[in-house]
Amino acid sequence: MSATVFHRLDELASRFGLERRGDAATVIAGVATLADAGPRQLAFLANPRYAAQLATTHAGAVVLRAEDAGACPVPALIAVDPYLAFAHVAALFEQRPHPQPGIHPSAVVAPGARISASASIGPLCVIDDGAVIGDGAGLGPHCTVGRDCTVGAQSRLVAHVTLVERVTLGRRVLVHPGAVLGADGFGLAFEHDHWIKVPQLGGLRIGDDCEIGANTTIDRGALGDTVLEDDVRLDNQIQIAHNVFVGAHTAMAGCSAVAGSARIGRYCLIGGSAGILGHLEVADRVTITAMSLVTHSIREPGEYSSGTALQGNRQWRRNAARLKHLDDYVRRLTALEKGPRDD
Amino acid sequence: MSATVFHRLDELASRFGLERRGDAATVIAGVATLADAGPRQLAFLANPRYAAQLATTHAGAVVLRAEDAGACPVPALIAVDPYLAFAHVAALFEQRPHPQPGIHPSAVVAPGARISASASIGPLCVIDDGAVIGDGAGLGPHCTVGRDCTVGAQSRLVAHVTLVERVTLGRRVLVHPGAVLGADGFGLAFEHDHWIKVPQLGGLRIGDDCEIGANTTIDRGALGDTVLEDDVRLDNQIQIAHNVFVGAHTAMAGCSAVAGSARIGRYCLIGGSAGILGHLEVADRVTITAMSLVTHSIREPGEYSSGTALQGNRQWRRNAARLKHLDDYVRRLTALEKGPRDD
Amino acid sequence: MSATVFHRLDELASRFGLERRGDAATVIAGVATLADAGPRQLAFLANPRYAAQLATTHAGAVVLRAEDAGACPVPALIAVDPYLAFAHVAALFEQRPHPQPGIHPSAVVAPGARISASASIGPLCVIDDGAVIGDGAGLGPHCTVGRDCTVGAQSRLVAHVTLVERVTLGRRVLVHPGAVLGADGFGLAFEHDHWIKVPQLGGLRIGDDCEIGANTTIDRGALGDTVLEDDVRLDNQIQIAHNVFVGAHTAMAGCSAVAGSARIGRYCLIGGSAGILGHLEVADRVTITAMSLVTHSIREPGEYSSGTALQGNRQWRRNAARLKHLDDYVRRLTALEKGPRDD
Repeated sequence: MSATVFHRLDELASRFGLERRGDAATVIAGVATLADAGPRQLAFLANPRYAAQLATTHAGAVVLRAEDAGACPVPALIAVDPYLAFAHVAALFEQRPHPQPGIHPSAVVAPGARISASASIGPLCVIDDGAVIGDGAGLGPHCTVGRDCTVGAQSRLVAHVTLVERVTLGRRVLVHPGAVLGADGFGLAFEHDHWIKVPQLGGLRIGDDCEIGANTTIDRGALGDTVLEDDVRLDNQIQIAHNVFVGAHTAMAGCSAVAGSARIGRYCLIGGSAGILGHLEVADRVTITAMSLVTHSIREPGEYSSGTALQGNRQWRRNAARLKHLDDYVRRLTALEKGPRDD
Repeated sequence: MSATVFHRLDELASRFGLERRGDAATVIAGVATLADAGPRQLAFLANPRYAAQLATTHAGAVVLRAEDAGACPVPALIAVDPYLAFAHVAALFEQRPHPQPGIHPSAVVAPGARISASASIGPLCVIDDGAVIGDGAGLGPHCTVGRDCTVGAQSRLVAHVTLVERVTLGRRVLVHPGAVLGADGFGLAFEHDHWIKVPQLGGLRIGDDCEIGANTTIDRGALGDTVLEDDVRLDNQIQIAHNVFVGAHTAMAGCSAVAGSARIGRYCLIGGSAGILGHLEVADRVTITAMSLVTHSIREPGEYSSGTALQGNRQWRRNAARLKHLDDYVRRLTALEKGPRDD
Repeated sequence: MSATVFHRLDELASRFGLERRGDAATVIAGVATLADAGPRQLAFLANPRYAAQLATTHAGAVVLRAEDAGACPVPALIAVDPYLAFAHVAALFEQRPHPQPGIHPSAVVAPGARISASASIGPLCVIDDGAVIGDGAGLGPHCTVGRDCTVGAQSRLVAHVTLVERVTLGRRVLVHPGAVLGADGFGLAFEHDHWIKVPQLGGLRIGDDCEIGANTTIDRGALGDTVLEDDVRLDNQIQIAHNVFVGAHTAMAGCSAVAGSARIGRYCLIGGSAGILGHLEVADRVTITAMSLVTHSIREPGEYSSGTALQGNRQWRRNAARLKHLDDYVRRLTALEKGPRDD
């Protein structure tokens, strides 16, 4: 990082509407963890797991909740949500390069592509006929934008991103390397003794402000479109099948997967490695815990889980073997409750 | 899509051997879902979940089973398997571009590669020495074909596909973006206090008519080859380890994984996110439900499952805590059944 | 493979400190499985599953344990760990190409990148400003090395590898195709009714002798670095979130995943498709079996599991339905044990 940025603590407090405690003139030149921060860095305390680190921090200041402020040995900013406040402050110190508008000479651009003069097309990109790249959009190296794909204004494909066919990205969408958007859905029909491929004729529409993680795959629809509404946030290695609908502001953690034609509501939180079967509905504001499998529609908001608790392998084996006969045990239990029969 | 294609309903019926009900002259210019179809589009009803949409469809005609035909308000085609019939009709309306034969000037082709004059090599591909590209094969942008790899006639690598080394694809194989075929298997031996790498000297052979999903990985063999027989269908983000054998016509859903040297039969259906451990055998015509883990060989056809049902998190926690002691409960149950002991 | 390499059995025995049985002059020109080996190939027997193949092998010689030597119909090498001995022998027959030092003319190298004269940069690579490529390092086709990334001496990026930003690879690191190293972590803060992105300001440090599988993703830190110590071995399609720490010599199988800020010890073995939640610690020498979920810190070495055993679907359904009420059954059991109440 080249240039250095400075902010006074009182300036940060007023800019983000936070209460300040301690020296107004404290100079903050960066952000760090409680454990690593030095005297010109701001740290934060949000997760109680790290509360013990507060006493020994060398941070210049700490963002934390009012109830933790008494234990803070250095100047503080008080926030209802310290993690959110920290995110805002940290953004001041982020130095993202602003790529130059224009098309790198090594890129291969079809004559029928329309590219905004303010867009940046990186080295070795391939842009096909019918593609549209919006104002201020940025494509890093090795991106492919296929036929009839649109990249909205200010969106950014970091590197090695593939937009296959009939994909529309909204504005300010961020796509990480290795993501494949708009590939064929997995549509097969069985004929006598072999599979035939079902044509995948739909598209993929992604709303504004979405983020798509590294090596995540989202197939386009078979008929009609796969849809992500605005502000959907996907972590790495997520799989979204054809004709899935994901409501606005839903966030999914790494390695989760959604099967075809499932409809997920808004403001849902899907845990890592969780799975959602096809052709079902998940209501708004549903949380699915990690590695759970959703096998039926969920109509009510709330937190849902499947799976078993972790145990030492030996004890786990004993219980898992018993579980194979649980139905029998319950029958035996019921028989006992009924008492001895009169034969 | 540029040109428009039309078919009369009686023509579709006779071409695919289907019974027609209603106006023979109905013109079909495309396909769509029951909910979205307009008067010049054909829809289909296969999944009973969507039966209620039949009454209000605006489709020009619907492909459905005989028993659903009475409820159909528009002309109909009767099929034993409506989804299969629909797949055939839909293919008439699919307009895949036919890339021009030849090698894009930006591709990097080693002198020792053999490329059919009828093959199409897209922009920025890299073809190494010893590679063979068959008649009519098509490589989209950014594909890499490594040493001693063969792409069979009419096969298609959509984009960003990597064939690492000693990979042979049959005819009409379709590989989606981000797939990595023929990488090193995960072979490690432990020496005193560290790992040493076990050389991966085998290859990967994929039969005719296979389909490989986006970001799927299939390692080449350690000794001998990893093998997919004909007509194996893999969805996205599947992991196939070294020396796995997958029998013909088996289909695997997204994010499933198979460990080294497992042998999977023919006509199997492997659910999403399912796992199969190494060095075991799965018989022909086995179905594994989503997120199940196969830990031992399966000798009989049928459907197999592991895992637990989804519940509200609070109730799930109670049950999961109890499950950690199931073996104890069963012992207590057995003691009760024996009745009070005579001490 | 062009040149052929030969070794006498007595030479192999003395080179690797193994006891030889049978003809010292046996010529070995390659390696193969017990089932496939011919008279000039060495096979091995390590896994008892394959012991029955010993009687009928046509191998020139077999590496095996002393207790299996009596049953071996051909010359033998005796090893305490036959798989390890085999790995050493097999390496003699591996013929990896040594790419020529230099930069392929199709690569795009920023003026501020520093590339060792002995490094090899393959076709269509993109190297950004501030990147450093060490002595003897090799980049295959289509690799991207972003700003401020360092590739250590003798490391190898096979093809289509993306180093995003602030990534440091040690020496002799091997990275397979499609791996994405140093992408943004999944950091989100919730503001009123939408997400805001938390800047990801840290880096990723990978030690010497690590191996990273195809399509594996490792995010860089939010604050501070994501760290893999030396000799960490990752299979394909693994997800490592921001600020994870993985201790030296730990090996993880395909499709496993680790959430943010988890700390994994040394010499751990993480099974395929296993998950580890964030902000917890796993001690040294812990084994997690396949598809298990680690939801709390593990303080003691040993083997840990979660999940249920595979069953036929019909029986599984019955047991899974019962499991939803396990807590009730335990209460009923306890009530029975207490006997009839005196009302």
